[in-house]
Amino acid sequence: MRVFGIDPGSERTGYGCVETDGRRHRLVVCGAISTSGSGDFAARLAAIHRALVGHLRECRPDAVAIESLFHAVNVRSALKLGHARGVAMLAAVDAGVAVVEYSPSEIKRAVVGYGRAEKAQVQQMIKLLLGLDRAPSPHDAADALAVALCHVHRLPGQVAAAVAPGPRPAIALRSWRAYRPAGEAAPRPRRGGPRS
Amino acid sequence: MRVFGIDPGSERTGYGCVETDGRRHRLVVCGAISTSGSGDFAARLAAIHRALVGHLRECRPDAVAIESLFHAVNVRSALKLGHARGVAMLAAVDAGVAVVEYSPSEIKRAVVGYGRAEKAQVQQMIKLLLGLDRAPSPHDAADALAVALCHVHRLPGQVAAAVAPGPRPAIALRSWRAYRPAGEAAPRPRRGGPRS
Repeated sequence: MRVFGIDPGSERTGYGCVETDGRRHRLVVCGAISTSGSGDFAARLAAIHRALVGHLRECRPDAVAIESLFHAVNVRSALKLGHARGVAMLAAVDAGVAVVEYSPSEIKRAVVGYGRAEKAQVQQMIKLLLGLDRAPSPHDAADALAVALCHVHRLPGQVAAAVAPGPRPAIALRSWRAYRPAGEAAPRPRRGGPRS
Repeated sequence: MRVFGIDPGSERTGYGCVETDGRRHRLVVCGAISTSGSGDFAARLAAIHRALVGHLRECRPDAVAIESLFHAVNVRSALKLGHARGVAMLAAVDAGVAVVEYSPSEIKRAVVGYGRAEKAQVQQMIKLLLGLDRAPSPHDAADALAVALCHVHRLPGQVAAAVAPGPRPAIALRSWRAYRPAGEAAPRPRRGGPRS
C-alpha cells in the first residue's frame, strides 16, 4: 500500500509518498512545494492545492497522513498554517483518499523514538528507514515522509520500524539514541539539561 | 458590478452576493453553508468548497470579499478558521475572481459606522442598505453581505452608503446611531462605559 504524507506550510509544503509491503518501505517520491514567489496569499494556496492534486494523481495513495498542529504556534501563524492545511486536506478529499492526522510528538516517537526529536534527527532516520543514499532535503520533505511512515507504523501487522535492504545492520530503529553513525556527534542535550 | 462576500467558519460559512450600479445596491443571494453534519473535518472543508464553487458559478461576481482575522481568537480556533478561509479563498481563485480582505472593524465601520458594532446592528443595517423586508438571517449571511458591502463602499465613485429605493428616508447611513426605528432600544453602551 501507499501512504502520502503532507507537511503543510503557507511558504513551503513538504510532501512524500511511501510504499510498503508490510515489512519494508520504499520511497516513491518526495519534495517541497515552494510558494514564496506565487503572488498573493490566495494564489499561493491555489498553487499548493494544484501541486498536491497533481502529486496525488500520480502517486494514487491509499491514505493521506498530515501533521496536526493545535498548539505551540501563535494565532497569526496558526491562521496562516490553517489555510495551507485546509487546501491540502481538500486535495486529499478531491482525490477520494482518507485523511489521517498525527501530532508532531506522535510522528517523532514513531520515526525517531523520541517525541522531542530535532529536524536533523528526523531527516537521518528517514534516510535509514527508507534505505536512501542521503537524507531527504529540504526538511519539509523529510517531515512529510515522517508523517507517512508514522501512519505506516500504525497499520495492523507492521514491524515496528522495518529497515530497507542494504549494507546497514537490521537493528530495531525505535530510538535515535540507538543509532549513531561513526563520526557523528551525540544528540544534543535537551534544552535546560546539562551543558557540560 | 457584483461583489460576493464570504464569512468563513468551520461549522457555518456565510455567503452573500450584492449587485451595485454605483449608487444603489441589490441583494442577489445570501445564505449559510452548514457543515455540522458533513462528517469529519476534511469532509466539512470539501462541503464548504463545493458549495462556494457552486454559488460563485451562479453569481459570477467581479470580486470576492472576505473577512480577515488576525487577532482576537485563540490558536485552536484560529487554526480551524484558517482551514475554512483557505478553501473559501481557493474557491474564489478557482472561479478566476480577485480576493480582497477587510478587517472586522473596517467592515463594521463601512456598514454601521462604528467599528465595534454588534451582530444585531450589522443585520439591521444590511436590511436597510439593501431595502430588504427583514434582516438577513442567520447572522453569518448578514456578515457575508456586510463584507461585500464594505468592498462596494471602497469602490471609486461610490456614494458613501446608498439606500435602496423604498419608503424609508434616504438619510446618510454612515452611522448606526443615526438610525433608530421607532420602538427600538438605543444602542447598548460600550463596555466600561456608564451603565446609567
